[in-house]
Formats: sequence, C-alpha cells, structure tokens
Amino acid sequence: MKQKLIFSNEVGKMLDKQLEAIIFDRLFILVDENTASYALPLLIDSSKYVSNAKVLTIKPDDANKNLDTLELIWQQLSDNNATRSSIIINLGGGMVSDIGGFAASTYMRGMRFINIPTTLLAAVDASVGGKTGINFNGYKNQIGVINEAESSIISSVFFKTLPKQELFSGYAEMIKHGLLDGLESTNQVLSFRIAEPDFDISAILSLTKHSISVKQRFVEADINEAGIRKALNLGHTAGHAIESLMQKRNTPLPHGYAVAHGLVIALVLSHLQLQLPSDILYRLANYVYEMYGTIDISCDDYPALISAMQHDKKNFGNDTINFTLLKEIGKVQINSSVTAENIGIALDIYRDLMHIA
Amino acid sequence: MKQKLIFSNEVGKMLDKQLEAIIFDRLFILVDENTASYALPLLIDSSKYVSNAKVLTIKPDDANKNLDTLELIWQQLSDNNATRSSIIINLGGGMVSDIGGFAASTYMRGMRFINIPTTLLAAVDASVGGKTGINFNGYKNQIGVINEAESSIISSVFFKTLPKQELFSGYAEMIKHGLLDGLESTNQVLSFRIAEPDFDISAILSLTKHSISVKQRFVEADINEAGIRKALNLGHTAGHAIESLMQKRNTPLPHGYAVAHGLVIALVLSHLQLQLPSDILYRLANYVYEMYGTIDISCDDYPALISAMQHDKKNFGNDTINFTLLKEIGKVQINSSVTAENIGIALDIYRDLMHIA
Repeated sequence: MKQKLIFSNEVGKMLDKQLEAIIFDRLFILVDENTASYALPLLIDSSKYVSNAKVLTIKPDDANKNLDTLELIWQQLSDNNATRSSIIINLGGGMVSDIGGFAASTYMRGMRFINIPTTLLAAVDASVGGKTGINFNGYKNQIGVINEAESSIISSVFFKTLPKQELFSGYAEMIKHGLLDGLESTNQVLSFRIAEPDFDISAILSLTKHSISVKQRFVEADINEAGIRKALNLGHTAGHAIESLMQKRNTPLPHGYAVAHGLVIALVLSHLQLQLPSDILYRLANYVYEMYGTIDISCDDYPALISAMQHDKKNFGNDTINFTLLKEIGKVQINSSVTAENIGIALDIYRDLMHIA
Repeated sequence: MKQKLIFSNEVGKMLDKQLEAIIFDRLFILVDENTASYALPLLIDSSKYVSNAKVLTIKPDDANKNLDTLELIWQQLSDNNATRSSIIINLGGGMVSDIGGFAASTYMRGMRFINIPTTLLAAVDASVGGKTGINFNGYKNQIGVINEAESSIISSVFFKTLPKQELFSGYAEMIKHGLLDGLESTNQVLSFRIAEPDFDISAILSLTKHSISVKQRFVEADINEAGIRKALNLGHTAGHAIESLMQKRNTPLPHGYAVAHGLVIALVLSHLQLQLPSDILYRLANYVYEMYGTIDISCDDYPALISAMQHDKKNFGNDTINFTLLKEIGKVQINSSVTAENIGIALDIYRDLMHIA
C-alpha cells in the first residue's frame, strides 16, 4: 500500500510535515458546509499551508454524493488551474473523502489527495481500502475507483463535537474489528464507553489506531475482495437487513446501529453453527443492549429480514445464505452457509438476548 | 501489463476465444453511430457472443467525448443491470475506447473491457498505454484514468472502408514509431504506401503489430510518463504548434498530418543539434511531401509557432523549449533544449525541404 497513515492529534503540524516532503504546485482543500465551519478554522490556525489553499465547499450528506457535486469539484479544479502536480485535501466524513478522492483520482487522469477524516466512522472505515466514488441512479457508490490517498491523517480532535449517534455509528465498526482481531482487542473495545461526557480523546485515538490496523491487515491480504477481506463483512449481512426493514417502516436506524445488532446475530449464528463460546456472545449482547438500545422485531418480521439477507449482493441467487462467522474470537470463517431455518432460530435467541418481548 | 494484445483479421473468432476464457455475466458492446452501421454487422456475423450482447450506441466524434455521453453510458449500464462481473466491448476509434474505457473503469469501481479499434490511429496509438477519459471544460482528456483493457483485438479488416485522410493520420504515428525503433523499421514504413487503392491489409496488420510493439516498449519502461516515454512525443511539439496555427486560420489540419510535418521539423532540429545524418531527413521529407502534401507557412508565422511550442504543456514557463530529438535513427534524446533562434533556422530548412516558397 502506498498510503501513509499518520495518527496524531496535532493535525495541522502533521499535515505541514507531509506537504513539506512532497513537490506540488497548487493546494486545494475540499470541505462540506459543516466541516467548513467547525473543522477548517482549526486547521487554518494550525497549518501554514492550509491558509493559502483554495477552499472548495460542497453541500454535506450522502444525498449530495452525486454527479452534480462531482462535476462542480472537477469544474473548480479546472477553473483554478489544478494540474496533475496539485494536491487536494479532503477534510470531512466519508462523503467528502469518497467524492473528493474520486474527483482527484480522475482529474487529469489522477492527482494526489490527502484525507483528514473528521468522523469516527470515516477514520475507522473510509481511511483504508481506497474506495472512492459517488452514488448514481439510486445506487450507493455505483460509480468510483479504488485508489488510495497519498496519506491519511487520523486524529480524534474533531470527535468531541460529533453527535453521540455519529460516534456510536463509527464505534460499531471498531467492535467488529475487535472481534476479528482477538480476545484482547475485544476486551479493550467492550470496556471502553465512547460518548460519555468526558471520554478521553487520546484513548480513542489509540483504540482507533489499533482498529484500523486490523482492517488494513484484511484489506492488504485481499485487495480485490476475492476472499478473506469478506471477514470485514462480519455483522453486515444481518445489519443491512435490519437497516432495510427499519427504512421500510419509516423509522430509519443509523448504519452503525444496524451493524451493532447485526454483530449480535452473527455471533448467535457462530455459536449455533461453529460452537463459538457463549460467554463472548453474552458480553457483546449486553454491550450492544446498553449502548445501542433495542429495536422492535417480532416473528412477523422474519420473512422480510431473511429475504433481505438473500438479496444482499453477496448472496444473490442462492438458497442458503453466506455469512461471515467466527469459530472463535479472532478466528473468522467466511462463506459460512446458513439455512433460513437457522436464521429463524438465531433471531429468536437474539430477541431473548436483547430483551425484546 | 495485464492487457492482452491479439493481432488477427478474424476478429469475431478471436473475440469469442477471449470471451470463452473469461467468467462474466452480461455482455455490452459500445459503438458510435458510424461503427454501428459499418463495423457492428461484421462482428455480429462472425461472433456468437456479440449477437446476444446489449448494444449501447453513442454519437460519434471527439465533440461528444464529454460528460453527457459518459453519463448516458453509466445510465445504460446501470439500467441494464451491469455488474462488476460484466464486460464491455469498445468497438470504434479512439473516441469510443477512451470514453468506453473510462465508463468501464469507474462503473462499480471497475468492470472489465475489451477494445476492438476500427481505425488505424486507434489501433496504433490508443490500444496501448491505458489512457481513458473525456474532454471537460474545453480541455482534451481533462478527466480520466489510466487503466488497461482486458485485451485489445487489433485487425485491419475495418481499414479498407476508412477515408484516406483517416488512414494517413494513423500512419504518421507509425512513421514516428519506425524512427524511434531503428533503420530497418524506418525503411519498412517509408517504403509502404498506405491508401493506395489496393493496399494489402495483411501487410498493414503486420506493420501495425510491429509499430505497436515499439510503443509498448517505451510505455512499459515508463508507465508514469516520467522519462523515456517522452520519446513518443517525437514530432508532437512542432506538430501541435502547426495544428493550432491551422486551427486559428480556420483551415484545420488533421492531427496526424500535423504530426507528419512535426516529424520533419524534429529531424531538422536533430540534424542541426545532434548531427543526425541528413540522408534520413531528406527521405522523410520527401515521403511526407508526397503523401501528406505541403502547408502554407511563411516567416510571419514563426512567432506564433514558437509561442505555441512554448505553451505546449511539457514546456510551460521555460525560455528554451524541450524537444524529443534523435541522435541517430533509433537513438532518442529526450529533453533536448532548443532556442527560439534554432527553431527559426529549422523552420527555414523545413520550408525548403517541403518546397514551400
């Protein structure tokens, strides 16, 4: 991997150090209307380069991760004489790094970019793997390329101002990485309480660093997503199904919350099919119950959930459903075949664990 | 390089052989309104796969190599349920392979594509190097990526119906490759007369094959265009200047014709500065004079030509102008610094050689 990952809460200083080591002509910084007001001023104060950069501002949120916004970025790069030797800094959540990374990867057949994630989810999920792109024709990330940033500067300085829900969303991915890594990581993750009023930004940065190293290990082992990288799908097959169900009910659940519940279901299945010890299952279920709360699922929802899992892109056209499961904490089993019947049993157990009547 | 290059005039058969060796779900074929009528029927007759492929038709010409056409291709891929496991065949000139290759490289973060060039220029120039893209904001190829086709099937079966001008345009690149390769190649290229009424399509295919191998050698040695790949710029600095001049006069000259004249100027400079023997210069000048004709350039045009050369992107901001020149046939000297004065002298000699009053 060519991308440098830098972990530091001295973001401006680290950015300047990166830029000093690179030969470039013009500097651009891409922000959305939110990061323009809460993150950019902090960076301008602490980086001598950023104060001279051309600021490109886009509308926030996934709904604007589209072709119109992309065209606007290309247009502004072109009108401001960006060249293949220019640099663009993406300051924001995954939406900003996805679209900014794609714009950079395609402008003059590729200029370099630096990501500075401002959300926990972007730090832990979007900063590794090189996925860039936009939504198109009603599909998420339909258009894009795989191309890594020159470097990503990961900090937790922007997290203090994040809404609690945003922090929890990112943290679900960190729980997943803990489970994939091993018992020690899992213990660490499940003993940390993010979004307590005085949570420690140094502690979260150190947890984030370790979490990203887990993702990186799986991505590097399988850059084209042909095999073991599917480990990172843990919790997502059931999670996506829950997400769709709640969407249809018009009570949408943030992605990370759905993943947290999906992880519990994946561990129930792992216990049923692969004899994963039950103690970790209980501990995870308790943690998710306490932090993410419960959701209203009854037996009547099972057919819709199972159908959604079957239509998950990884399972299209199969009778049984492929899950990523765990034999033990830290021992992953991809492509575990699960019948609809076993999913029904697992959902019963999941409801018990989550105190759902 | 991952790309397979297949040279054969049995295009349909070779395409089927390629497709048989690949696992894919849906097959698309991109054509423009011209290749839809003169090339597609030939392919449908000779390939069992193509008759079942979904045909995507776009408007022809460089003017349509734009974001609107790209969006249309993405839209049709999406509406027809293309996946990352689908294949798109680009059947056409460089415009079709540039935009089709870019659409494929970005659809779902990359699907595979096969190029079947239908023009000599596309065969000899666009089929190697992986450049894809669209024009944007008034600039050529402003947006794109470097990504090679799965394979390119190079044939000369479509050349018989090409306009003479189109053949000559492609052939200028072949002359360039001959000069870069060595004396034997140069002799071969300068003894062949393309676009004579009964030119031999097998002979041109064999010449094309050798010509592409020369380009491939330079591209492979320098995939990021940092050094020796600039060899391929031979004739283009002066060529682009002539092209702009004729454009401004409203008597546009096809790109390949401008390159042919640019090659003569580059060889004059090579003789002046690097003692390139004069016999090859005379032979090239005679060939270009006979095949490409003459153009009306006077001393009054020198300032405009020199200024255009200075603004060529490879020379921006310099007092002297960097040319790719030849020490001998087959011995290239990139970054040869030339003064405006020497360009004036070279243009005088060029005009004499081309019998320009």
